[in-house]
Amino acid sequence: MPRYLIRLSYDGTHFSGWQIQDHARTVQQCLEKALSYFDAPVPLTVTGAGRTDAGVHALRQYANFDLEKEISPQQMVAALNTRLPDDIRVLQSWQVTSDFSARYSALSRSYEYHLAIHRTPFNRLYSAFLPRYRINAEIIEKCLPYFLGEHDFSTFAKLNPDLHHQRCTVQEFTLEIKDDELIFRIRANRFLHNMVRRMIGTSIRLGHQNKDPMIIKDLIAAANPNNDLIFTAPPEGLFLAEVEYILECISSR
Amino acid sequence: MPRYLIRLSYDGTHFSGWQIQDHARTVQQCLEKALSYFDAPVPLTVTGAGRTDAGVHALRQYANFDLEKEISPQQMVAALNTRLPDDIRVLQSWQVTSDFSARYSALSRSYEYHLAIHRTPFNRLYSAFLPRYRINAEIIEKCLPYFLGEHDFSTFAKLNPDLHHQRCTVQEFTLEIKDDELIFRIRANRFLHNMVRRMIGTSIRLGHQNKDPMIIKDLIAAANPNNDLIFTAPPEGLFLAEVEYILECISSR
Repeated sequence: MPRYLIRLSYDGTHFSGWQIQDHARTVQQCLEKALSYFDAPVPLTVTGAGRTDAGVHALRQYANFDLEKEISPQQMVAALNTRLPDDIRVLQSWQVTSDFSARYSALSRSYEYHLAIHRTPFNRLYSAFLPRYRINAEIIEKCLPYFLGEHDFSTFAKLNPDLHHQRCTVQEFTLEIKDDELIFRIRANRFLHNMVRRMIGTSIRLGHQNKDPMIIKDLIAAANPNNDLIFTAPPEGLFLAEVEYILECISSR
Repeated sequence: MPRYLIRLSYDGTHFSGWQIQDHARTVQQCLEKALSYFDAPVPLTVTGAGRTDAGVHALRQYANFDLEKEISPQQMVAALNTRLPDDIRVLQSWQVTSDFSARYSALSRSYEYHLAIHRTPFNRLYSAFLPRYRINAEIIEKCLPYFLGEHDFSTFAKLNPDLHHQRCTVQEFTLEIKDDELIFRIRANRFLHNMVRRMIGTSIRLGHQNKDPMIIKDLIAAANPNNDLIFTAPPEGLFLAEVEYILECISSR
């Protein structure tokens, strides 16, 4: 049975996240419904690279699934986009080998986080705005290097008992300071639940409270999420920006 | 009774335009409701610089109204934004002389129109996308200069029997060609109903049909809106960008 990989983009505003849940509109559910148009195996399973939370957007997300039929990339993109709501768009499609997984074959994931300096009618869906916080870009920027490298990130995650360990390697974490917004960019081999939003939220809180950025080091070492400095930044500023794979895996035949 | 002028911005997606109508959500209605918090005269009348249509956005719109009370600019902005929905934001407020009108004191109005080359989940609310049209930027660009200057624009307007004449002076009409969108920018002393969308839509249709841009000249001269070449481009790409006033009128005391 051929396996397919698709690259897609979605506006997370009106989704209860990626993962299928009862009585909720999710991206996975919309995809599975659109795919039922093909002679899909029952049950059809769509595996995403990252399970984004409610309100989180994706510039580039990836998902794989198996279908009975051979479908060309052009056919796949056209057929899915005709059947999907306009807040999800499929950008590209590939046929991949049956051992490829959008989730487990990913080498790393990259996220962007947009923090608005002023709220406008046009940024309200695609950036966070924190009127109760004084945005101290200088302190925020100095926090970021402390997250780099391999650490146990328990402090910055919702506890997940299914995980063997909480170690992640943060490969990149930068801040771009613009007139009207701050843009955070982060890449890691994997992310724990809420990890990006907690790292960014906590850096914003340290800036607001005029604290020493070095505190990040102690927070990581403590491996304890129950600290008053931990703040989960809101979801609307977060975008899954890219997922990195070994290119040989993606044959576009 | 002091007269106030406000500068505001709104996302037109969920509004049935500017003007109050029964059983419809409009910008004017939201403003009048928010203003009823002050000791507003009954009836309270809010006059806008431009009566944008359903789905049309405003980067900068202006409106004036009279209130019994003296209210500082800071108070006005804060009080209104607390009471307005988040798809409208008041940006600034001035007290003006009682002969000032956001509508009649305006020297000119500037609009932007965004035409997307590809539809994405993030541009769907803020740009037009015309999959049935081949976008011929070269022909479109050559159409624009024919609109410049003073003309009777009856060809490009919904008939309005209340108007004495259909003459308008188009002072600027340019096209910026980007990788993923075309941006039109137009300024005129006044605009007739649907005029921007019909000028842009018709230029797009001429490009699609590979016609001579000079046809615009004949279309204007004919003063006849019933021509198969006339096409009204969709509202979601249109933004009221700025309204120009003689600055002395706006005292920020």
